[in-house]
Amino acid sequence: MLKPDTALPDQIEAVEQQPATSGAQTGHPTTDAPRAGAVSARDQRPSSKLERWFLNWFLTACGDPAIRVLLWDGATVTPARQPPVGDVVIREPATLWRLLLDSDAAFGDAFSDGTLEIRGVVVDVFAEIWRAIRNAPVGGLLGKVLSAIRRRRSHSITSSRRTIHQHYDIGNEFYRLWLDDRMQYTCAYYGQPGMTLEQAQLAKLDHVCRKLQLQPGQTVLEAGCGWGGLALHMADRYGVSVRAFNLSHEQIEFARQNAAARGLSRQIEFVEDDYRNASGKYDAFVSIGMLEHVGLENFTELGRVIDRALTPAGRGLIHSIGRNAPQPLDPWTEKRIFPGAYPPSLKQMMDIFEPFRFSVLDVENLRLHYARTLEQWLERFEGSSSKVREMFDERFVRMWRMYLAGSVATFRIGGLQLFQVLFTRGSNNDIPWTREHLYPVPR
Amino acid sequence: MLKPDTALPDQIEAVEQQPATSGAQTGHPTTDAPRAGAVSARDQRPSSKLERWFLNWFLTACGDPAIRVLLWDGATVTPARQPPVGDVVIREPATLWRLLLDSDAAFGDAFSDGTLEIRGVVVDVFAEIWRAIRNAPVGGLLGKVLSAIRRRRSHSITSSRRTIHQHYDIGNEFYRLWLDDRMQYTCAYYGQPGMTLEQAQLAKLDHVCRKLQLQPGQTVLEAGCGWGGLALHMADRYGVSVRAFNLSHEQIEFARQNAAARGLSRQIEFVEDDYRNASGKYDAFVSIGMLEHVGLENFTELGRVIDRALTPAGRGLIHSIGRNAPQPLDPWTEKRIFPGAYPPSLKQMMDIFEPFRFSVLDVENLRLHYARTLEQWLERFEGSSSKVREMFDERFVRMWRMYLAGSVATFRIGGLQLFQVLFTRGSNNDIPWTREHLYPVPR
Repeated sequence: MLKPDTALPDQIEAVEQQPATSGAQTGHPTTDAPRAGAVSARDQRPSSKLERWFLNWFLTACGDPAIRVLLWDGATVTPARQPPVGDVVIREPATLWRLLLDSDAAFGDAFSDGTLEIRGVVVDVFAEIWRAIRNAPVGGLLGKVLSAIRRRRSHSITSSRRTIHQHYDIGNEFYRLWLDDRMQYTCAYYGQPGMTLEQAQLAKLDHVCRKLQLQPGQTVLEAGCGWGGLALHMADRYGVSVRAFNLSHEQIEFARQNAAARGLSRQIEFVEDDYRNASGKYDAFVSIGMLEHVGLENFTELGRVIDRALTPAGRGLIHSIGRNAPQPLDPWTEKRIFPGAYPPSLKQMMDIFEPFRFSVLDVENLRLHYARTLEQWLERFEGSSSKVREMFDERFVRMWRMYLAGSVATFRIGGLQLFQVLFTRGSNNDIPWTREHLYPVPR
Repeated sequence: MLKPDTALPDQIEAVEQQPATSGAQTGHPTTDAPRAGAVSARDQRPSSKLERWFLNWFLTACGDPAIRVLLWDGATVTPARQPPVGDVVIREPATLWRLLLDSDAAFGDAFSDGTLEIRGVVVDVFAEIWRAIRNAPVGGLLGKVLSAIRRRRSHSITSSRRTIHQHYDIGNEFYRLWLDDRMQYTCAYYGQPGMTLEQAQLAKLDHVCRKLQLQPGQTVLEAGCGWGGLALHMADRYGVSVRAFNLSHEQIEFARQNAAARGLSRQIEFVEDDYRNASGKYDAFVSIGMLEHVGLENFTELGRVIDRALTPAGRGLIHSIGRNAPQPLDPWTEKRIFPGAYPPSLKQMMDIFEPFRFSVLDVENLRLHYARTLEQWLERFEGSSSKVREMFDERFVRMWRMYLAGSVATFRIGGLQLFQVLFTRGSNNDIPWTREHLYPVPR
């Protein structure tokens, strides 16, 4: 089936609006004979009856989305429900067969190499397919079988290093093209409507620091510090000392240089190592956007690290992409973008806290904020796409477009969540009575 | 071991401050010979060497709390750590043996019938015992074994009716003596310091209604409505129509009379039935203080009822006593106060939401608020204790004192939590961007 977890950007990838012209109002999809010239084909072989039959069966199994499918020879499968939201264009037989046999990963690859295109408002096209699959009993069953046979990846310290290199060491210059000036590669917080990406990322940092109730002179352990933006902000604005762990060499170097340039080197120690090797006691623990890479089987170990590290009145905050119910990451993103990544459900996250009787004080779901963050990243990415093409190649540009745009759609549609979980020791009574301090009155 | 989940009120039950006079600074407890007249004894038989040996062993197994134990004949077990926080007085051999053999339930019963007394600041005494047990490896192991052999109660609709009668149908007049004027028998919300019970219960109702974002004309399903205070408030102040379920005949009658008196009978339907029999579609689902009585094995069924009842953009809120990690309710409270009750952990609560892919938007832990609520209930209860004694008897007064004061201590010490979980359908995008609307600026 088509990937339920990705989508294509509407403005950018809307190749052309080409309304469907035939098809019944209700019932099953109908197939029209090939029409020469309807599609710019790479392979002139006509589609076979078998191929069209399989495609029909496949669309039915996907819950009959209101999507028209065009094949390389102009053959058209018109959906039962009219009008169609848009078109999926399959430009060669091999792509069709890959979609039929390994739809989850094949969709993203075909989009990346240009053998699959979308016509119409692409996020709408994708949302239509996604909702149809979600509501199709067969699709749901297929999904369960697929999930069951996917094996979990092991997250030994060595394999974590490899994973982190694959994504985060692409090069700071690349990320600088489309992230905000603090290089925050996690969900921003749009506390006020109309915030820019820079404003929303700053608001996120303050939202986290307010939740942690940081006081000058306190110590903070940060697991997975990215380019160090939060560590620098905590040290600079909240007067705390930070020990920040990260496996990415490029990110740590960047963070150290920034700390030195801002005279904060004595307040922040950036450690190029696994968070599991952290020692010492801290007033706060914070981890923004790392849990997705930790792996379920290491959640209790993460809890143990935090339990070892926190002072009796210490507070902790974990900010992570999550799910409403357990489900593996879509295979394409897992294969091409984040090997080994897994967004947990809240129930799964509790394996960090419950074995150590941590008291969860506050959970906030920022799903819509991540959709907005990704929209702003995508907009900047597209604005710099010619530079990205020079740095890498066209396939890389399309792959990242697929990933960013697909993520926008997934957060919009409720396929992924963003949880901020605030916690403390079960015995700690030094906790705020309300959350009003998170919402200071604007002056 | 002594019950870890209850305590005795400090002002009320502090019989007399009687500092301990002997005992080593470190090491094991020491036992002094009986001294005539030290304790007002009901049984003049001297304590045996075996009894004193068992008591010593028992205190060691409980982690050696800094508590002095006095027996009926004046024999004293002085703790190793000095000075002791207070005394536990055991007034007859049968009580000692019951404590040694079935400590969990026997403690509350012995306190209720007056054969066990506390001398000193009683909440401090209890907290000391509780912390010692929590930190004792043997106590922890004993606790686990005890938990394992306790069987779960079944919550068929019939048994639910029995349970509800046992507690809630004691009589509205009794509850009226110490609850607020809206008869809220759940955790209040102290949004501002120094709030009275009435103010804090009103603030709780508004906090819940703001979380649910109720709009005039909307419909609400309430499961477990108590005396109808929330339903009346929602209908009156937020202009919604409410269908409210409760199994307690006395409560439903009270609620109906109140609705009629305030001209709200057409806006609220109070149904004397199980929430599982609810039909229809609603813009909001709310349940305050019912989940504790639902039973783990019915959580998914509760989720199904909500899934059946909510409109596509519907919101739900569940307010429940909970735990940091799974643990049965203490046996005395379960036996004498709330048969079949079970406060779930957050992980366990997720069995309501995850099977239906509900999206958890917000979790708030109001533990300290419940400690404060219980303090205010206890204060009013003690102020009316002579009336309660007339209505029932002395044992009933002591039993409710044990329950209320024990609950204060348990919430204070972090043994119980209060979770408010706000959720909606996974596909609903009509959700607020921030939680700022929960914290209106005071005029």
